[in-house]
Amino acid sequence: MKDQHTDRKYREELRRLRRRLLAMTGRVEEMIAHSVESLVERDEILAEETISADNQVNRDEIETDELCLIILAKWQPMATDLRFITQAMKMVTDLERIGDLAVNVCERSLQLSREPALKPYVEIPRMAEIVQKMLRDAVDAFIEGDAQKAQTVIDSDDEVDRIFYQAFKNLLGLMMQDEAHVERGMQIQSVSKVLERMADHCTNLAEQVIFLVKGEDVRHIGKLGKQ
Amino acid sequence: MKDQHTDRKYREELRRLRRRLLAMTGRVEEMIAHSVESLVERDEILAEETISADNQVNRDEIETDELCLIILAKWQPMATDLRFITQAMKMVTDLERIGDLAVNVCERSLQLSREPALKPYVEIPRMAEIVQKMLRDAVDAFIEGDAQKAQTVIDSDDEVDRIFYQAFKNLLGLMMQDEAHVERGMQIQSVSKVLERMADHCTNLAEQVIFLVKGEDVRHIGKLGKQ
Repeated sequence: MKDQHTDRKYREELRRLRRRLLAMTGRVEEMIAHSVESLVERDEILAEETISADNQVNRDEIETDELCLIILAKWQPMATDLRFITQAMKMVTDLERIGDLAVNVCERSLQLSREPALKPYVEIPRMAEIVQKMLRDAVDAFIEGDAQKAQTVIDSDDEVDRIFYQAFKNLLGLMMQDEAHVERGMQIQSVSKVLERMADHCTNLAEQVIFLVKGEDVRHIGKLGKQ
Repeated sequence: MKDQHTDRKYREELRRLRRRLLAMTGRVEEMIAHSVESLVERDEILAEETISADNQVNRDEIETDELCLIILAKWQPMATDLRFITQAMKMVTDLERIGDLAVNVCERSLQLSREPALKPYVEIPRMAEIVQKMLRDAVDAFIEGDAQKAQTVIDSDDEVDRIFYQAFKNLLGLMMQDEAHVERGMQIQSVSKVLERMADHCTNLAEQVIFLVKGEDVRHIGKLGKQ
């Protein structure tokens, strides 16, 4: 272990990385909320704004990756820090993709706004709420190294799946009633599928946190950090 | 830049990393092929076998990550190699998820095998073929640092999307014909959606390769490697 690991500048760069991850997470969370709001309120302007907001999230990914590479190259961190930084690089990829999925919801929302509503949205806003919490908790769990909090994220995925299947059943009923419902039904089903995918991303993040935390228990006296 | 970067052992570890990536890619490719074959041939045994094969892919992810961390900690690579290794860590996450998606196809295949066939599968095997090639090319492009090959992967995604929408239209027609077709139609649509997601993963991989190759053009005399 090198001296610089207690270096003030090194610690400051790690803090900067954490702040960036949290800021990016906040932006993605907002994109999820706005994408579903644009659908429910049939708000085309909000949908367009949210699509534009994705540019910042794309920049966040690139800049955070860059910061990680600089920290790796400059400080050559070991053990826990090395895992934290490489894991952060994986996480930003997931965050960026969740942003892409929110854009996906906005695109559907723009299409659906042009047609009469098939049914009031009940399950989708509920799913979005849970997904936002999953996302926040997964990133917090990572930053705090909290395996227990990460486990709550994984548990929430079952709830999202349950609502997803309920929504699917309801839509299927509507689609069987009248063939004129089929096309819009499939569109709404797509949105619900997108939210389920976001929940999967959060679950993946949480699983990685658990692996990181538990992995260290068994490995941190292992190969790494003993060079 | 350190001397060990021309070290025989260091070079050998990088070669080992490349071999592992290629082996993992081969296994995931085979999972895609088998998952769709199990669907088309209504082969439940093949579906079950493919689901089991995912365990090896999960182990591949963990072991390759581990190898990357060891190389990072032991050799503290700079510039191009540092980017290559951290990118490899991101890639295995994608590969592992494509494996999960193949499991997803197998699960649908098991469900659909129990019901009468709705229609012969035409678009899905075609999509699977393209996706397998996209995957192989994306990983080859990464290993060879070949931005042009990566671009062909991105171009293929349009073809997958085109087939996806064609399949969607055909299914919609069948579902509107008879309500008894709706449930199976939705299941088949899910499989087709899963293949489209696999293609998205490959496109993401290819985009990262291009960013890596082009990024180096502008960055390799930049901040990194000039400590």
